[in-house]
Amino acid sequence: MIRIGIVGGTGYTGVELLRLLAQHPEVQVVAITSRGDAGIPVATMFPSLRRRVNLKFEDPAKANLRNCDLVFFATPNGVAMEQAPALLDAGVRVIDLAADFRIKNVAEWERWYGMRHASPEWVEKAVYGLPEYHRAAVRNARLVANPGCYPTAVQLGFMPLVEAGLVETDQLIADAKSGVSGAGRKAEIATLFAEAADNFKAYAVSGHRHLPEIQQGLSTMAGHPVGLTFVPHLTPLIRGIHATLYARIKGEADFQQLFEQCYGGEAFVDILPPGSHPDTRSVRAANVCRIAVHRPQGGNVLVVLSVIDNLVKGAAGQAVQNMNIMFGLPETEGLAQLAVLP
Amino acid sequence: MIRIGIVGGTGYTGVELLRLLAQHPEVQVVAITSRGDAGIPVATMFPSLRRRVNLKFEDPAKANLRNCDLVFFATPNGVAMEQAPALLDAGVRVIDLAADFRIKNVAEWERWYGMRHASPEWVEKAVYGLPEYHRAAVRNARLVANPGCYPTAVQLGFMPLVEAGLVETDQLIADAKSGVSGAGRKAEIATLFAEAADNFKAYAVSGHRHLPEIQQGLSTMAGHPVGLTFVPHLTPLIRGIHATLYARIKGEADFQQLFEQCYGGEAFVDILPPGSHPDTRSVRAANVCRIAVHRPQGGNVLVVLSVIDNLVKGAAGQAVQNMNIMFGLPETEGLAQLAVLP
Amino acid sequence: MIRIGIVGGTGYTGVELLRLLAQHPEVQVVAITSRGDAGIPVATMFPSLRRRVNLKFEDPAKANLRNCDLVFFATPNGVAMEQAPALLDAGVRVIDLAADFRIKNVAEWERWYGMRHASPEWVEKAVYGLPEYHRAAVRNARLVANPGCYPTAVQLGFMPLVEAGLVETDQLIADAKSGVSGAGRKAEIATLFAEAADNFKAYAVSGHRHLPEIQQGLSTMAGHPVGLTFVPHLTPLIRGIHATLYARIKGEADFQQLFEQCYGGEAFVDILPPGSHPDTRSVRAANVCRIAVHRPQGGNVLVVLSVIDNLVKGAAGQAVQNMNIMFGLPETEGLAQLAVLP
Amino acid sequence: MIRIGIVGGTGYTGVELLRLLAQHPEVQVVAITSRGDAGIPVATMFPSLRRRVNLKFEDPAKANLRNCDLVFFATPNGVAMEQAPALLDAGVRVIDLAADFRIKNVAEWERWYGMRHASPEWVEKAVYGLPEYHRAAVRNARLVANPGCYPTAVQLGFMPLVEAGLVETDQLIADAKSGVSGAGRKAEIATLFAEAADNFKAYAVSGHRHLPEIQQGLSTMAGHPVGLTFVPHLTPLIRGIHATLYARIKGEADFQQLFEQCYGGEAFVDILPPGSHPDTRSVRAANVCRIAVHRPQGGNVLVVLSVIDNLVKGAAGQAVQNMNIMFGLPETEGLAQLAVLP
Repeated sequence: MIRIGIVGGTGYTGVELLRLLAQHPEVQVVAITSRGDAGIPVATMFPSLRRRVNLKFEDPAKANLRNCDLVFFATPNGVAMEQAPALLDAGVRVIDLAADFRIKNVAEWERWYGMRHASPEWVEKAVYGLPEYHRAAVRNARLVANPGCYPTAVQLGFMPLVEAGLVETDQLIADAKSGVSGAGRKAEIATLFAEAADNFKAYAVSGHRHLPEIQQGLSTMAGHPVGLTFVPHLTPLIRGIHATLYARIKGEADFQQLFEQCYGGEAFVDILPPGSHPDTRSVRAANVCRIAVHRPQGGNVLVVLSVIDNLVKGAAGQAVQNMNIMFGLPETEGLAQLAVLP
Repeated sequence: MIRIGIVGGTGYTGVELLRLLAQHPEVQVVAITSRGDAGIPVATMFPSLRRRVNLKFEDPAKANLRNCDLVFFATPNGVAMEQAPALLDAGVRVIDLAADFRIKNVAEWERWYGMRHASPEWVEKAVYGLPEYHRAAVRNARLVANPGCYPTAVQLGFMPLVEAGLVETDQLIADAKSGVSGAGRKAEIATLFAEAADNFKAYAVSGHRHLPEIQQGLSTMAGHPVGLTFVPHLTPLIRGIHATLYARIKGEADFQQLFEQCYGGEAFVDILPPGSHPDTRSVRAANVCRIAVHRPQGGNVLVVLSVIDNLVKGAAGQAVQNMNIMFGLPETEGLAQLAVLP
Repeated sequence: MIRIGIVGGTGYTGVELLRLLAQHPEVQVVAITSRGDAGIPVATMFPSLRRRVNLKFEDPAKANLRNCDLVFFATPNGVAMEQAPALLDAGVRVIDLAADFRIKNVAEWERWYGMRHASPEWVEKAVYGLPEYHRAAVRNARLVANPGCYPTAVQLGFMPLVEAGLVETDQLIADAKSGVSGAGRKAEIATLFAEAADNFKAYAVSGHRHLPEIQQGLSTMAGHPVGLTFVPHLTPLIRGIHATLYARIKGEADFQQLFEQCYGGEAFVDILPPGSHPDTRSVRAANVCRIAVHRPQGGNVLVVLSVIDNLVKGAAGQAVQNMNIMFGLPETEGLAQLAVLP
Repeated sequence: MIRIGIVGGTGYTGVELLRLLAQHPEVQVVAITSRGDAGIPVATMFPSLRRRVNLKFEDPAKANLRNCDLVFFATPNGVAMEQAPALLDAGVRVIDLAADFRIKNVAEWERWYGMRHASPEWVEKAVYGLPEYHRAAVRNARLVANPGCYPTAVQLGFMPLVEAGLVETDQLIADAKSGVSGAGRKAEIATLFAEAADNFKAYAVSGHRHLPEIQQGLSTMAGHPVGLTFVPHLTPLIRGIHATLYARIKGEADFQQLFEQCYGGEAFVDILPPGSHPDTRSVRAANVCRIAVHRPQGGNVLVVLSVIDNLVKGAAGQAVQNMNIMFGLPETEGLAQLAVLP
């Protein structure tokens, strides 16, 4: 059994990690920490875990995380960069679900995240954990930077086109819609039910932190900087991201076939038949990205629809997928749950 | 492998059966029928099942259901009473998720359901499949009448009190709230999103078909007819039933302890600590009933809160639980999924 | 024009007061205060009011409220009892939308609200502003205690029965369901979208602050203390309260007619035809309580269904109704908006 | 009083027309028809209208619509083109809320709507009722084609840019999201609560009927055919459209100022301050379009956010606005209701 620690278990990615890991046959969660809720049984806070998760939240200062084989950081941005290095130096492998190690350009990271980076040396060593594109590196990684939710949906949708060089990369558009759980389990007025229900809005149009992360991935693939307009929206879903991607075609191809070939061997990327419209509920609670490819009116704009559950393929599920790769397990181990529909 | 057939697979209990059975290690669904959608791949209608369920809906007239070990009827009321007897006579065991075999008094059934019963002889032989109270009979049953969703939540909440004879049984009140999936996957104006969202209402206050079913169960336990006021409500949930039960105390007891002892050995009934308020999401997509017991202000009214997922413990999950019992499998086989929260 | 001040305008009752008063032909809101948001234009916080409300939030210490004819307190409990007396002494009339002056028994108020009352003398002089039962007193009141949302729905539903002495008053049951806006515009985890959406739960079963308020009203009407079990629930609505009321019949009557006669002259209480089920959306954004009366199976339990919009008839609308009465305006002035359906 | 008839009053645009007209001081609805529900009181179907609308639905064959000054068609596509001409010939003015008279190119209309047009001669005479751009023509129109919901939000957002010639018109992108009431009050599985709640999806990516309508408007303004990619999405709102518009800048300007000047005199178009993100609830139940203009990262893509209530500015409210213009009333008469927030 792989011994697992979770730092920061009281958020939505924390409880989702617990849901998945409690059903994973090869792991044991031995410690979970929370600064504010130390001493409280996990199942008291999350009754969905009653009878299945018997841990209590531990004080981060006291938890014996060095005893773990792998530690997940499900913490706010800025925590893992402070605490992960000591664990890494002690030989513990780490998956950070926050953004601390996602952006290779430290100066750019500091500009977007508004803080000084505490361990730039680990940024360099970190592997960006989008398994479909970095599987080999993940296998041997000591530190995996688990991708953001929007970047997962957007990159999986754009990558085959950018890789094939078939679209204009100076004017990509990603119109993305997220469920409210993406904002985290934080007491804030903007995400109250009475604010977010029966309501729809864009936000951060001037610039969202996931923009440089997506640009980094696409630019690396393209071999040159890409131009991307990224507009996120808040939609009254609990879970789910729907990315609607627009790209101007510059080279002809059978785009449906391109996507099918690109992801033919992937367990967690599902290319729908021509003419499909994936709905977010078709991935609810499941570790899968479903994609459909359209060329409206046979014109010169390609429209790619890409959906994930932001807490699973966009966070905890992808982290478990990376864990499976790191520890030589079948990539689908513990991730076989079907989506919950309706 | 147990060979399974499903009659009427295009409704919500049908797709939920498929979700659960596709993850069950001991069964194989070999046929699923639909009058209206024969020939269509199941995963085309329900993309959540893509890559995991490769069946097509078959014409009921052509499907070889006699070849199955067990057939689930996930059909509207009135279908199983017509079609199940032939299968039963051929040695196939049957679980009916509709109401055809739930009410022992055929005349009463006919009055509430507004049709003539086609196989009263099988009503007599049928076992009412509330496993926590009829486990032994289910084990040997050829035909199981799977309980209704409201009756499951209400009976599990009232039974310990009625069994112990500690409450006035002539004035029980069950105020029940159901998610909209309880109305089924049928094209109707009343359950459109624009009608049911951001809206709350009671319905069928003058009499709901689940009333006689609940009364039958409680009266049998009490040894005399009980008086029950049952008011169902439609609430803007997809899944979930919350029953708030009121009973006048006539004998003193430690009611918390009573419930804990009653359900102590049950895998799928969870008694919460004193002072708890179970929420429906704590059972979303999981086969469990969570119950809390309150005595407000120390008065003479007991309030029991009972929640289930209407599609799981209230339908498909309970049916699989009954199947496990019928076939000598561990009762929890294939039913270990944790609730999806948030 | 009546000069209006609003203390505490950043909550949901505050913005709802502004919506209603901005459309009222006889009033002018001259000041609105907020401790935390002084200086900010109201329409910046609530864009729904753009071009129609040109006020800025003012520092409560600086606002000239004594210049007003009427001041509404849309503040948390405990504020009006501190600040209203000085205004009252200066001749300003006051309507408090919080609970400070609702309970005549100060000791009981202090027990339920957990603080010492700052102006018990004004509790005595305050008029409980349920217009349908206290219209005459409201007319001349200097201080009106605007009823709570649950107490409005529950009392309007029970009062005719209690007044007529036709039900057992020692075992009344009120099973009430509220939309999430009832919890206010406060940053709290429990009312986040991702917590409250697609979820249903009871809360405060052991005792909710509206219990003594309802009991006071019903007991006064009955002439003796009533026994009430009150269970509130949180339901995924933005607005709306649905109270399902249960009473044991002790005297026969035509209950439908009783309600119709009782409220025949009321502009804001609507008795539905026999067999109806009022839905909360039928009162969304409107100052009306709709009621239906049922006697299931012709038994001895009466079921009354009572719905309001918690922010309108349950708060701001009722406050405007009280204002109209206090200032001799037609009671319906400014309150003629139809419910928004769907 | 202007005498009003409504053909087809049982849909969402019908009930919304009634809500608005019942609060309009200068009109009287004298007849409302429904083929299927003739004889039923309107307020029985829509209890929100109780005590305020006393009409019954009439059989269309019997209703005396020729006696009206104006008839609204709130019918499915294809009805008005059959029935309106006789009324028009009798001197009755008509506003069609369906699509029959929106597209000037009859052949194109027939292709998109899949039927033969019954009165091409009236297509030519009809005025497209987007008042902000066709006010003068509406004033004298006998027949107004009320714009579609998406076309209203998208055109109001793109028009100033196209008019000023400042963006590339061969590659406009409109990513639009609609509430479910846009699909109408029709019994369909796809728009059931249990299908559409907590779910998000694109639809009709290959081509939606509102595409040619939008292209017609923008192309007329541009003076040449525009290239538009239009992707509609279904989002779990009851009401609301959010259009996110992308255009490539070809000429520099102060775009904020451009929009403010363009709509400076408009009562129902509200340009938000720079940096704003309009939410759909800020227009819920109100006849207004709120727009924000962004230029992310100072790049060469302009992003315009445009929100309306699809049933008000996107249908019934705009129809009343057109009526006001046609009959020489103040354009805002009866349309002053503030948005309902929260």
